[in-house]
Amino acid sequence: MRGAVLHAPGDVRFEERDDPRISAPTDAIIRVSASCVCGSDLWDYRGINDGDDVDGPRPMGHEYCGIVEEVGDEVTTIKPGQFVIGSFFASDNTCPNCQAGFHTACQNVEYVGAGGAQAEALRVPLADGTLVATPEVPDDAMLPDLLAASDVLGTGWFAAVAAGVGPGSTVAVVGDGAVGLLGVLSARQLGAERIIAMSRHESRQRLAREFGATDIVTERGDDGVAQVKDLTGGVGVDAALECVGTNEAMTQALRCVRPGGGVGFVGVPHGVSLDGVRLFYSMVRVHGGPAPVRHYLPALIDLIWQRRVNPGKVFDLELPLAQVAEGYRAMDERRAIKAFLRP
Amino acid sequence: MRGAVLHAPGDVRFEERDDPRISAPTDAIIRVSASCVCGSDLWDYRGINDGDDVDGPRPMGHEYCGIVEEVGDEVTTIKPGQFVIGSFFASDNTCPNCQAGFHTACQNVEYVGAGGAQAEALRVPLADGTLVATPEVPDDAMLPDLLAASDVLGTGWFAAVAAGVGPGSTVAVVGDGAVGLLGVLSARQLGAERIIAMSRHESRQRLAREFGATDIVTERGDDGVAQVKDLTGGVGVDAALECVGTNEAMTQALRCVRPGGGVGFVGVPHGVSLDGVRLFYSMVRVHGGPAPVRHYLPALIDLIWQRRVNPGKVFDLELPLAQVAEGYRAMDERRAIKAFLRP
Repeated sequence: MRGAVLHAPGDVRFEERDDPRISAPTDAIIRVSASCVCGSDLWDYRGINDGDDVDGPRPMGHEYCGIVEEVGDEVTTIKPGQFVIGSFFASDNTCPNCQAGFHTACQNVEYVGAGGAQAEALRVPLADGTLVATPEVPDDAMLPDLLAASDVLGTGWFAAVAAGVGPGSTVAVVGDGAVGLLGVLSARQLGAERIIAMSRHESRQRLAREFGATDIVTERGDDGVAQVKDLTGGVGVDAALECVGTNEAMTQALRCVRPGGGVGFVGVPHGVSLDGVRLFYSMVRVHGGPAPVRHYLPALIDLIWQRRVNPGKVFDLELPLAQVAEGYRAMDERRAIKAFLRP
Repeated sequence: MRGAVLHAPGDVRFEERDDPRISAPTDAIIRVSASCVCGSDLWDYRGINDGDDVDGPRPMGHEYCGIVEEVGDEVTTIKPGQFVIGSFFASDNTCPNCQAGFHTACQNVEYVGAGGAQAEALRVPLADGTLVATPEVPDDAMLPDLLAASDVLGTGWFAAVAAGVGPGSTVAVVGDGAVGLLGVLSARQLGAERIIAMSRHESRQRLAREFGATDIVTERGDDGVAQVKDLTGGVGVDAALECVGTNEAMTQALRCVRPGGGVGFVGVPHGVSLDGVRLFYSMVRVHGGPAPVRHYLPALIDLIWQRRVNPGKVFDLELPLAQVAEGYRAMDERRAIKAFLRP
């Protein structure tokens, strides 16, 4: 089969790779119906992944949906022929951490992306725990929405939950990538009344409004914080979603929130550090991490299946998988929010 | 009148000071019935308050209860003759932050301790918002319990709330000072099922057990974390209370908690810094700050008035106010958990 391999920063190639095989009795092999490029793939692509830069060929991609082709002997609920979606981390869905809703801390966690989901086929470990099947094989038109549930929608959703968004909340969203935009959608679904999207890009602002943003703030830093304070009677928002991963974004999020409010952070941190004294006197609650997407998958698939949300709108570039390299380039240059890849 | 004044690290004196006066129409003057020495006073006393060391005479003390002697023209609910308790921060109890339950971020906040509560009398700003009156003037025997509500009980309570303690929770408490011990009591009242007190001092362990601790861990660092993990099936506690303020204590608290659990931190941070990457992958929720004691005061006074809790047991040394210097010494040398001072 063929798939995307990163050889060095900036050098992603579509090439022949070994077919994935069942290597544990709890594995499944899926034929990938759609995959995509993640904002976090760009850290590798740009070669700015502190201490973890690519130093050899690495299969890429960790967002996927597709048809089950084969399952291992111990897989009981997932069956060949089903259309399934999974998260970037495999999880058993039974350990105490999974039971608590934190599947990304599963005691048997495994990185699905190690196999590289930007490919024609993929091995998914712990298939029964990791994969969720749709009621039927979906129309092609629904693929972008369902694929979004594999990572970016669940990540935006977790950001909103971790920030404490609920009915009537005022919310600020820092970051206008796919996760930030779907953070807006998630906050809306969770009942937020006012959602301030912080974005300087017109097309992203439009999508933010479509997803439920009530206000747009284009300023950053001190001016951005001042704008958010102005919009909230000088108090700050109840909740801020940090969807970038830089120290600037985290600081911005923290400063926008009222005392007692929360920051949900889902951007993989690069150079982020929180000063104890500042955090103490801000009284802001902080919660984040690799989103336990699996926990939210059944509910998110249901929302999509009922056509109540269209998270797939974050894909503003569709390419054949063979042109994956162009997907990376377009996102790196911010010509595209997110590239959808069809094998 | 007379009161405690810190002249330099280690040099606290009981001396003549000006009588407090109504300086704003929202002030009250109270005759102090009881005061005490706080763990946070020791930072000043030891001269290790980063960048904020005492460089001249400073009136000390911020925990108080007493009889209202005089009120300003605009004070309407607090009346002379009432027995009242207030927090270390004055608050108007009406601004959006107060309404949200975060009185320590009141838009008109003022530090009551500036007047020095280890004294015979004290000016309390924003009296209507700050002070809570008891149903009647209490017996002398109840003074320690009520005084504890002024700071340490409310602080321990907030630590438990901020950490997310609820019915059935497993909890670890880092710090066996008065706040930590009352964090144990608070966790118990909030329904925690298992409470692990981390303490190396036998008398404090006894009090922790009396307040509701089910387990004692004497180890610190890696060994302490390993013990807590052992006691919780390898997973970690749902909630940890950080009641010290050092980086070691914060790290300990963070490492004891399961993914998705929370740390409530109320120790004034000294050298505390949180690494973004570690926090991200731990998935631990962090919330703390100067405890909004005023928010909890009515409920805490009610618990005490009904004799359902005895937080005053943390006072294991009673001194006449004139011997306040001995109170500091005893706490500094850890001969006493907390010194109760009677003018």
